[in-house]
Amino acid sequence: MSLVRVHNFSLSLDGFGTGAGQRLDAPFGHAGHRLHDWFFQTRTFRQMHGESGGGTGIDDVMARTWDAGIGAEIMGRNKFSPHRGPWQDQRWQGWWGDNPPFHTPVFVLTHHPRPAMEMAGGTTFHFIDATPHEAVRQAREAAGGLDVRIGGGPSTVRAFLAADLIDRLHLVIVPIVLGCGERLWDGLGGMEERFHVESVSAPSGVTHLTLTRR
Amino acid sequence: MSLVRVHNFSLSLDGFGTGAGQRLDAPFGHAGHRLHDWFFQTRTFRQMHGESGGGTGIDDVMARTWDAGIGAEIMGRNKFSPHRGPWQDQRWQGWWGDNPPFHTPVFVLTHHPRPAMEMAGGTTFHFIDATPHEAVRQAREAAGGLDVRIGGGPSTVRAFLAADLIDRLHLVIVPIVLGCGERLWDGLGGMEERFHVESVSAPSGVTHLTLTRR
Repeated sequence: MSLVRVHNFSLSLDGFGTGAGQRLDAPFGHAGHRLHDWFFQTRTFRQMHGESGGGTGIDDVMARTWDAGIGAEIMGRNKFSPHRGPWQDQRWQGWWGDNPPFHTPVFVLTHHPRPAMEMAGGTTFHFIDATPHEAVRQAREAAGGLDVRIGGGPSTVRAFLAADLIDRLHLVIVPIVLGCGERLWDGLGGMEERFHVESVSAPSGVTHLTLTRR
Repeated sequence: MSLVRVHNFSLSLDGFGTGAGQRLDAPFGHAGHRLHDWFFQTRTFRQMHGESGGGTGIDDVMARTWDAGIGAEIMGRNKFSPHRGPWQDQRWQGWWGDNPPFHTPVFVLTHHPRPAMEMAGGTTFHFIDATPHEAVRQAREAAGGLDVRIGGGPSTVRAFLAADLIDRLHLVIVPIVLGCGERLWDGLGGMEERFHVESVSAPSGVTHLTLTRR
């Protein structure tokens, strides 16, 4: 069965999945790198970006599961781009350079569809204006029987949780207080009842939560 | 040196320290027992209430440190009572019966001072209208050189954190989403920079965070 999964999704203690004020030079707004430092230290992240080294402890073990068995990703417009509204400049190819680390079809949710963009390494960005259910249907079809990853950001994960479409959710609680930004949990009171929850703390200070549909 | 400490302070994943709608029959509002189930299972909690049994694992080890070296507690009015505004009924003696589990002076912060109330077992409730700094001064004086515990609720802990009066903070992240209630973190962005943070997950599913002033 093809599952819908979320991996390596960082949250601050106050429940923000990203900071306020996203800009071209600040993809996570005022949060900077603080939500993802644990990830940047892992061998998994280094390998995604063609680098060597990186930690191989529990943070890496958890991070590494992000692409196994994944056949497509769905992401929000704001994960793809710092721009809002109609596309002013179709040369923008995402934050990831010529060879993005996805290597699968990626469905970008936007109210402003545009032609698909084929990148090196097997990543193709498709721009669709679709409900969560319809997006999962299209992504599953493109995934050829493999799982679908919901890549974020927070409002995208929230929408798919609200639609009860997520089977596995890997959260990483980072012990920082952001004060503002984009909350994951708004409107999701009681959602834990649909999941079996496990948690493990890492020496880095973060705590990995895995929520698996009951 | 006399420290100011917080212990066993539970938080939901969305950052609420208590639920909405406190009532006489629902001290934690709609959260019910969900934030404190981990604590109720411990031997420490059972002993506080004159019962036997209870778990002795990591949750109990963490919970047990709550009263060692404590000479006084400061709590908010809403931890003491479900009533608001001027006291209508001075017979209310708190939620804890004739012999409260504090066994020290307890300073209840309220804009409506009233005479002190001496209970069995060494607990005396003092009702003071004071700033956080002044409350700590009075509690330290009463504590005779021992530490002062800030007992909650969330707005009280928040006020003492905002005033940079807390030396040690033990938080317990409970993997539930409350959706509404009283947030701990509002206005405290970046507060983690003042603390060294450690975390440990328990088999019960909660994660204990200890923040120690740098």
